Amino acid sequence: MAKPSIPKGTRDFSPVEMAKRNYIFDTIRSVYALYGFQQIETPAMETLQTLMGKYGEEGDKLLFKVLNSGDCLAKIDDEELLGRNSLHLASKLCEKGLRYDLTVPFARYVVQHREDIQLPFKRYQIQPVWRADRPQKGRYREFYQCDADVVGSDSLLNEVELMQIVDTVFTKFGIRVAIKINNRKILTGIAEVIGEAEKIVDITVAIDKLDKIGIDNVNEELRRVGISEEAIEKLQPIIALVGTNDEKLATIADVLAGSEVGLKGVEETRFILDTLKTCGLHNQIDLDLTLARGLNYYTGAIFEVKSLDYAIGSITGGGRYDNLTGIFGLPGLSGVGISFGADRIYDVLGGLNLYPKEAVNGTQLLFINFGEKESAYCLPVLRQCREAGIRTEIYPDSVKMKKQMAYANAKQVPFVALAGESEIAECKLTLKNMTTGEQTLVTPEELITIVKA
Amino acid sequence: MAKPSIPKGTRDFSPVEMAKRNYIFDTIRSVYALYGFQQIETPAMETLQTLMGKYGEEGDKLLFKVLNSGDCLAKIDDEELLGRNSLHLASKLCEKGLRYDLTVPFARYVVQHREDIQLPFKRYQIQPVWRADRPQKGRYREFYQCDADVVGSDSLLNEVELMQIVDTVFTKFGIRVAIKINNRKILTGIAEVIGEAEKIVDITVAIDKLDKIGIDNVNEELRRVGISEEAIEKLQPIIALVGTNDEKLATIADVLAGSEVGLKGVEETRFILDTLKTCGLHNQIDLDLTLARGLNYYTGAIFEVKSLDYAIGSITGGGRYDNLTGIFGLPGLSGVGISFGADRIYDVLGGLNLYPKEAVNGTQLLFINFGEKESAYCLPVLRQCREAGIRTEIYPDSVKMKKQMAYANAKQVPFVALAGESEIAECKLTLKNMTTGEQTLVTPEELITIVKA
Repeated sequence: MAKPSIPKGTRDFSPVEMAKRNYIFDTIRSVYALYGFQQIETPAMETLQTLMGKYGEEGDKLLFKVLNSGDCLAKIDDEELLGRNSLHLASKLCEKGLRYDLTVPFARYVVQHREDIQLPFKRYQIQPVWRADRPQKGRYREFYQCDADVVGSDSLLNEVELMQIVDTVFTKFGIRVAIKINNRKILTGIAEVIGEAEKIVDITVAIDKLDKIGIDNVNEELRRVGISEEAIEKLQPIIALVGTNDEKLATIADVLAGSEVGLKGVEETRFILDTLKTCGLHNQIDLDLTLARGLNYYTGAIFEVKSLDYAIGSITGGGRYDNLTGIFGLPGLSGVGISFGADRIYDVLGGLNLYPKEAVNGTQLLFINFGEKESAYCLPVLRQCREAGIRTEIYPDSVKMKKQMAYANAKQVPFVALAGESEIAECKLTLKNMTTGEQTLVTPEELITIVKA
Repeated sequence: MAKPSIPKGTRDFSPVEMAKRNYIFDTIRSVYALYGFQQIETPAMETLQTLMGKYGEEGDKLLFKVLNSGDCLAKIDDEELLGRNSLHLASKLCEKGLRYDLTVPFARYVVQHREDIQLPFKRYQIQPVWRADRPQKGRYREFYQCDADVVGSDSLLNEVELMQIVDTVFTKFGIRVAIKINNRKILTGIAEVIGEAEKIVDITVAIDKLDKIGIDNVNEELRRVGISEEAIEKLQPIIALVGTNDEKLATIADVLAGSEVGLKGVEETRFILDTLKTCGLHNQIDLDLTLARGLNYYTGAIFEVKSLDYAIGSITGGGRYDNLTGIFGLPGLSGVGISFGADRIYDVLGGLNLYPKEAVNGTQLLFINFGEKESAYCLPVLRQCREAGIRTEIYPDSVKMKKQMAYANAKQVPFVALAGESEIAECKLTLKNMTTGEQTLVTPEELITIVKA
């Protein structure tokens, strides 16, 4: 029989992997809670009505669709069947799909439960999402997202607190990061000032290459994508933008003097950065005009976080989006959120060897099983150990000592307890420290003290 | 626009519901870990090859099947399409399905990763499963299972420890339970002794009615399902089984004197019950011959747990099954496991008002927002509070006091901090206890001490 397997792009998580993943999720969860965010969960399946049309045409194709139960073909006529239009027929065969991200289900949740929700609503959500992407290194068809969003408040204090959360989480992880911030309104202002609103993406792409190709080549590229000489002239201070965040903001404010929206973006960014100065961040936060992620939905601040010591791309991102719930008929609610990339953080922590030893919370103490009489002697001691909070097991079968020790080694159990005839006669046990090899004869109480220490 | 909705039989979980669910999962998780069980996770989707044929014909129909991506109809010929055999076409349109339980994915996991697994393998798994059942009160299409299993050990110490886990978990919850135990081998022995192997279910159903209908009617029912007079005669001591577990086992051993497998079942049950006597269980465990759950796959011990104070049916169950992994080509591995019914436990805890206050881990302290200057004064204090581990937020917008207090009330925040002109002048804050209404003027340090107390 062929070895069984799992669908491509999906993963099993072993005990060691789970312990590390739980360390990541628990850390993020605890910081979210510290800032007053509350957890919700939504179903894995949403109606296709909720999901379709929210992620662009490409996104619709990447949705996993769930076949209707029962006689799903009965209502489809011959012509439609033989037309073999898979996308069209899928919409007839399926009325549910797997969640593609956590944002659309969150928007749906807010609208559906609006009577029960107190605004502003600060929610976090840590659940898997599914995308029928072509699997490749670091890209999976099932992966977890860890999102926090505030909906129903325009205040920039939300942006400030989300940056504090990012800073706190990565400080807890011991990962040094660069936090990049930008503002969609500044980019809109730039496009306004140079009269090329629809070229904003081309412009940021070109500016982003400054370090690699130099100012002359950047200008050349701007010409190539059709930016006028006059506009390029106006862009020069922005392309060559250097200095502190304050200096950069002053320069941009000069350039954007004629754009109301642009100046609004400068003001917002200044407020966020100024307020964060009083918050004692451990990591640096930098204004970066080339940061243009999510340009089609973010309307204010845009964030991105990269590890300074491990090259893997963005490990956290987010921003402000207006009208999150408008697609479901509840207009006028602004939202701002962040999303931690758990899979990449997993790799960074591993690559930099940053997992704390306690993260792998396996068995602390294994009792060797010498037979029925001996294990009967051990069971009450096991109970004491567990009551003392020690993760304890007894090898269930009285097999050869070598096999039981191999089990202890494979599970990396730090302490092994043995009780044979002589120990039992003395009401004691032999405790072996698996790291040092040291063996000591101890009472059950002494054993608990040593293992807990 | 119509209010958005979710697929029938699925649920959203609000912050309050999530807090309670996390309390349940965290409690179970911590006890599993205390007994040396390790967590794994498997993908939501499994191949249909893994899932099909494992849950009977009815189960196959209840699997949620996921439509293949891309042009899934291209390879199906006209005749097949127009045949409209939904079940047959589903197998062509779909090669993946949603997990139906945690046991089959676990068996698949053990076989797929057998080189990396140290036997005996003690794993636990807490994940949702999906079934296209007709939704009804208490039955959902998406629900969590919380399973622990040991595979690769025949030792009855595993059964003993699983019963200890059950006892510990419900003691932690404060739910008084009756633990019922039976053994498939005893039932097989009874069937052997009376020469009616295939009638064993009918017999247990009849015996189960003793309290309600009396011995004469039980015997009448046995006659009706075709049990011979001689067999009914032999069954009398078992139907009228009373007394302690020891007395019951003695009676059964007498009746099963001629059945090797039956006596093996008695011996196993005696070992489990005798060993548990030394383990200081807080709940009673009773031998119950009418317990016949999972008769088609359990091969040894069978367990079931019911709440004594809340009528809702079984809240935990389990048993031993031989040859778990045989279906995937790895024969000879015995397993034993339990599964906590989280949804029912949720109802029992609510019905008996047993959720600890700490289970709802919401915001502990809200800062009122009087404006930009005042919030700037508060932010460093918020930081101190969070560093002290207090779940703290500031209302993001400087709206009317009444609205901010309504928010505090809706989130059941126990403390509110206010800092206006006079507090700021003194470097202090006003702390309001939302339960008593008491207000005190305090330093940031005093505030932290009070809220933490």
